[in-house]
Amino acid sequence: MRVVVAPDSFKGSLSAAEVAARVADGVRAARPDAVVTCLPMADGGEGTLEALLAAWDVTPQVIDTVDAIGRPRTARWATSPDGRTGVVELAEASGLPHVSDQPLQPLHAGTRGTGEVARAVLDAGVDEVLVCLGGSASTDGGAGILTGLGARLLDDDGADVPDGGEGLARVVRIDLDGLHPRARQVRWRLAVDVTNPLVGEHGAAHVFGHQKGANDGDAEYLDTALRHWADVLDRETGVRTHDLPGAGAAGGVPSGLVAVLGAETEQGAQLVAEAIGLPEALADADLVFTGEGSFDSQSVRGKVADGIARLAAASPAKPSVVVLAGQVLLPAPLAWEAGITAAFSIAPGPVELDDLLHRTPARLTDLAAQVTNLLGRSGS
Amino acid sequence: MRVVVAPDSFKGSLSAAEVAARVADGVRAARPDAVVTCLPMADGGEGTLEALLAAWDVTPQVIDTVDAIGRPRTARWATSPDGRTGVVELAEASGLPHVSDQPLQPLHAGTRGTGEVARAVLDAGVDEVLVCLGGSASTDGGAGILTGLGARLLDDDGADVPDGGEGLARVVRIDLDGLHPRARQVRWRLAVDVTNPLVGEHGAAHVFGHQKGANDGDAEYLDTALRHWADVLDRETGVRTHDLPGAGAAGGVPSGLVAVLGAETEQGAQLVAEAIGLPEALADADLVFTGEGSFDSQSVRGKVADGIARLAAASPAKPSVVVLAGQVLLPAPLAWEAGITAAFSIAPGPVELDDLLHRTPARLTDLAAQVTNLLGRSGS
Repeated sequence: MRVVVAPDSFKGSLSAAEVAARVADGVRAARPDAVVTCLPMADGGEGTLEALLAAWDVTPQVIDTVDAIGRPRTARWATSPDGRTGVVELAEASGLPHVSDQPLQPLHAGTRGTGEVARAVLDAGVDEVLVCLGGSASTDGGAGILTGLGARLLDDDGADVPDGGEGLARVVRIDLDGLHPRARQVRWRLAVDVTNPLVGEHGAAHVFGHQKGANDGDAEYLDTALRHWADVLDRETGVRTHDLPGAGAAGGVPSGLVAVLGAETEQGAQLVAEAIGLPEALADADLVFTGEGSFDSQSVRGKVADGIARLAAASPAKPSVVVLAGQVLLPAPLAWEAGITAAFSIAPGPVELDDLLHRTPARLTDLAAQVTNLLGRSGS
Repeated sequence: MRVVVAPDSFKGSLSAAEVAARVADGVRAARPDAVVTCLPMADGGEGTLEALLAAWDVTPQVIDTVDAIGRPRTARWATSPDGRTGVVELAEASGLPHVSDQPLQPLHAGTRGTGEVARAVLDAGVDEVLVCLGGSASTDGGAGILTGLGARLLDDDGADVPDGGEGLARVVRIDLDGLHPRARQVRWRLAVDVTNPLVGEHGAAHVFGHQKGANDGDAEYLDTALRHWADVLDRETGVRTHDLPGAGAAGGVPSGLVAVLGAETEQGAQLVAEAIGLPEALADADLVFTGEGSFDSQSVRGKVADGIARLAAASPAKPSVVVLAGQVLLPAPLAWEAGITAAFSIAPGPVELDDLLHRTPARLTDLAAQVTNLLGRSGS
């Protein structure tokens, strides 16, 4: 019996690696002869670097850079064991939690720190860069990443515009003379877990601006600034990003990187799955466990469970896909439609949240054991 | 895919028939082509008559009799569709709930009413009588059932002793002249779900007396009375019941019926299973669902889940045995030892008891659907 264990983290409770270890314990309790492969997953947002470090068994590099409002901060990055792929997690340098000790600055926060991380990654000689989006403090259309990589964004006086969304509105020209020499030679892959466009009522400013501290007026200003930025990008690069699905992720980061660097947006979970070798692991698997804190309608729209289900369906072995979750809110027929074979809650009966959180490791092991025994009996 | 659904009731929530119907819905949702057989179960105690009525699709007979303290009361009984087997549920006439409107009378309560029901069953011409024990209000060693069938229990003046445990201590002779003529011609099968002996510290009076209202002195008195009763039975019939496993059930009912009528004690769940045709249904089943409110260490000691697991193991098809329960307290390895393939709670996540009770029907359907889809995929 070949079993792959590829859960997301249980947010606020266990990391993906911890969940995977407890599930693997249960599989082995039921089937000591099972071949178990643990590949902790992430959806391309916060926590993705951690998952890749675990999957690749590499230690991260650390760089001194700045946070979203320009204060000194260290950030981690990594390369794959073969040195070909670099990973940048936006939230490492430019994440919202790092600046929430201060009143939020939705117009000024930017992603320059992430650009400096990306520069270090390019210096390492990689061929491709995975950029994990999500958790950003800013709405700058990726301008900060480009400036961090050496680009200059100039106003009509030829002066550099300030960092952040506010500066976008003043950009009239993009000077790429100082851009890192390898920036346009590598492949940029952006892990995105939303499909929102850059601008408009479903865009980065209006949908995600408020959680970054923007009031209605700020959001309106930022939406206009992003539209101007997209116009400039279009004029300077010939690439139109206004309506690109997913360009609204992380304050519009994809727009700048798609237009200037030729980056591609990808569904985060699938990109991560590929990076950690999940398709190969699934090729001869009988069963794949995934899981997350809450299995609900969002789970089957681009999150980890959805990514796993798609890969399982594409695998020649067509393994069963079983979700183990803190709570299961999606009815069985809707799970099946999404390619999930079955979903079970770790709750052992009536139980309070605090108690369940405390018992999550043991319950994961027991539940995985029950499921494995059930499937294992039927001859796999 | 052939699926048998044979749950116990969820006490305080759903009858076994209701549980089975909801589970069957889930099986069919996952596998519309599945052949589903619903055989609601019981453990031989209260609720067993109901389960047999449902399995046999017969309507019960009703008789006017007396409750455990001699007040008028109606009680139901039934015969199998072929008329060969009669069913008497002790709790119908002589149950504790019927007399709990009054201060309990642990020394006076008896089983005469159940004897009158048994008389009606014999009049119907059956070849065997199933007596479902459990839920009794009395500790009379089955004396009441015998007197209800026409036996006389005489004191040393040749007078009838009073009903109840107190009278037992005065019995010196058993007069069977008036016993129902068929009483010793039919087979008596006693459904028992405990293994306690008649007397001693693990006996009927000391273990079960207190829940029937006995204080320590009453329990001591009743234990002595039962011992005397067993001595008389031994002397008069040559059958020693003092240490018979299970003779302590229902206030010692088996002792009188084993000694005088040649009754046999059987594990209740297995007796019920046989009566409703479960062994035949399991012969070609791929999967059997059972369930109960709480799946715990008691469940695998003579309760329904245990009976189902034993029958499944004895079946040529060796179906998987899946328990669906309100709460699952037994760790997977202990469930496996008992022949349970897997056990799942209907709890969808952190949830309060009241909420879970309310959602039990829908959750049973969803959980059964998840399990069926998981097993159904693997080719059964």
